[in-house]
Amino acid sequence: MNTYSPLLLTEAASRALENAGLIGEHSNLVARVLIDADMRGHGSHGLMLLPLYLQRIREGGIIADATAEWLVESPPIAVVDAHGGPGQVAANAAAERCAELARGSAISAVAVRNNNHIGMLAAYRMAFQKRGIIGMILNIAGASVAAPGGSRATLGNNAFCLIAPTSRQEPFVIDFATGIVACGKIREALMKGNQVPTEWLMDRTGAPSTDPNDLDSGGAVPLFGGYKGLGLSIMIELLAGVVAGHTVSPMVNRQRAHLDRPMHCSQFFIGVNPSSFAVDSLEPFIEQLHDAVRSSYENQPPSRVYFPDQQEAFCHTLAEQNGLTITSEVRRLLDLP
Amino acid sequence: MNTYSPLLLTEAASRALENAGLIGEHSNLVARVLIDADMRGHGSHGLMLLPLYLQRIREGGIIADATAEWLVESPPIAVVDAHGGPGQVAANAAAERCAELARGSAISAVAVRNNNHIGMLAAYRMAFQKRGIIGMILNIAGASVAAPGGSRATLGNNAFCLIAPTSRQEPFVIDFATGIVACGKIREALMKGNQVPTEWLMDRTGAPSTDPNDLDSGGAVPLFGGYKGLGLSIMIELLAGVVAGHTVSPMVNRQRAHLDRPMHCSQFFIGVNPSSFAVDSLEPFIEQLHDAVRSSYENQPPSRVYFPDQQEAFCHTLAEQNGLTITSEVRRLLDLP
Repeated sequence: MNTYSPLLLTEAASRALENAGLIGEHSNLVARVLIDADMRGHGSHGLMLLPLYLQRIREGGIIADATAEWLVESPPIAVVDAHGGPGQVAANAAAERCAELARGSAISAVAVRNNNHIGMLAAYRMAFQKRGIIGMILNIAGASVAAPGGSRATLGNNAFCLIAPTSRQEPFVIDFATGIVACGKIREALMKGNQVPTEWLMDRTGAPSTDPNDLDSGGAVPLFGGYKGLGLSIMIELLAGVVAGHTVSPMVNRQRAHLDRPMHCSQFFIGVNPSSFAVDSLEPFIEQLHDAVRSSYENQPPSRVYFPDQQEAFCHTLAEQNGLTITSEVRRLLDLP
Repeated sequence: MNTYSPLLLTEAASRALENAGLIGEHSNLVARVLIDADMRGHGSHGLMLLPLYLQRIREGGIIADATAEWLVESPPIAVVDAHGGPGQVAANAAAERCAELARGSAISAVAVRNNNHIGMLAAYRMAFQKRGIIGMILNIAGASVAAPGGSRATLGNNAFCLIAPTSRQEPFVIDFATGIVACGKIREALMKGNQVPTEWLMDRTGAPSTDPNDLDSGGAVPLFGGYKGLGLSIMIELLAGVVAGHTVSPMVNRQRAHLDRPMHCSQFFIGVNPSSFAVDSLEPFIEQLHDAVRSSYENQPPSRVYFPDQQEAFCHTLAEQNGLTITSEVRRLLDLP
């Protein structure tokens, strides 16, 4: 694996997407979303996806020149139909619109329907950060997750993201899938020739598996958090699925299984303006929460303090300093030395 | 234990609260919220709380005659200061206002600050159900929960509730605490002389405990769902704590530890109008999700299908048929035969 600067990789990925049929502005956006995930240490949602995206563009799953259409523009809400285009395009438009609406109306929602994979949800954080808005992003995906105690993949690995604006460059972000692990993490292991922990995956018979191949061979990822995790996943289904997309995750096409069909996944964005509730800054409160988490370990110091976002910030700094490594497949695709 | 009709218990509890200083309308509301929890099978949030509420009224923790004050009334949001009154009063007003605002504005939020314990969040479901609005209720509580891998109680057992309206009498409801169990469930075991499962509780040293006394002796409840559960809890902190209450859970008074002080807990209500997004009915989608969960067990049928809300509906029907049993302490307090 060779190492390249994030900027060079963004330009190369953007070129590849433009060559595949995306307009320049869109190709650059998709490339930036992918590279951003790599920089935050989530290779699962990074350039690793580019070969798949290009294949889906070729086969019709991603309609390269689709134009997102605003169906509802009625503050404080809006609805956009992505018409099966690159998922990042409609998602980015929705994030910007949602944060803008929240500035004027204190709370807002934007629904995206008929969309494709939008990458890491946290990639849309800056729309909220730059306007001082708390953002929530909910996303449904095709069935890959088993219900608590179940073993067949019948629910989406639905995802949740919270963005809290700060006075620093980066907002505070929570971003997680409702499966015990994002499916991309299993595919990342597959690509690197690694096994996965047994708690990540079941095979087609429902037995715990360490073989990442099982994910796309009838296997399933367990839900996180038992029936409470299921509750959160159903909340995402009702808002991102039903309200935004008039669908539920079992009806969403899996992007690898149906290369020639748009996923028809959907997203729900919520914006809340803290200043409308007389909150000047979230930061002292976030610091108090950080202290509370830290002091929870006083009896038995753990090896690692679990507070969200620290790992991502650390990875981002490293990537800025050292660049990013890519697989040989992506290197060939990008025509890099 | 004797058995009484829910109606008789509501009237008796209402009388006891009125005698303690609540105005008639408020005493009836608080009583109905408590009995509703008993009927749904959550005795932890039912009449079991009445002795504590009465003691807190006597000692000043609940200000019986406080008047909730609307600080912001600016559609689509509103903010109400409960001024340390009975928690249910401001919560009920907020739920009604939130659902009403969502009918007009598609999405709405109502914040409640300086409040006390509001009981089971699902108790406020009918404000949303009768108007066809999806409701979310977020609540922060005093520190009783340890961070993932930690063992000291430094975070609130924050709670989340989702209400999805249906055409039936009852909405579909998800309602859970972010601790592995609601604190009330541990106190219910204490009252009944039962032990608790080791995964519910740690003692003051951080060791797993089966003794429910440990909850109020420096013990802690683990968070559900590891770092993802922590993410959800922090989401609740930022909306229900910071935005609504200008506080975080470590600053909230625990109602048993500070009988003479209002808890200063706070809540955030969100309403979403499905019809603004062209959704006529949520029910066929909820049915699809139910089928997806059920079919997840096809490989290995479990003893129980984990789909939210079924257990509560079952308990409610039983309680209507057979009445409710109460403890001898509550029976004496209510002056019942």
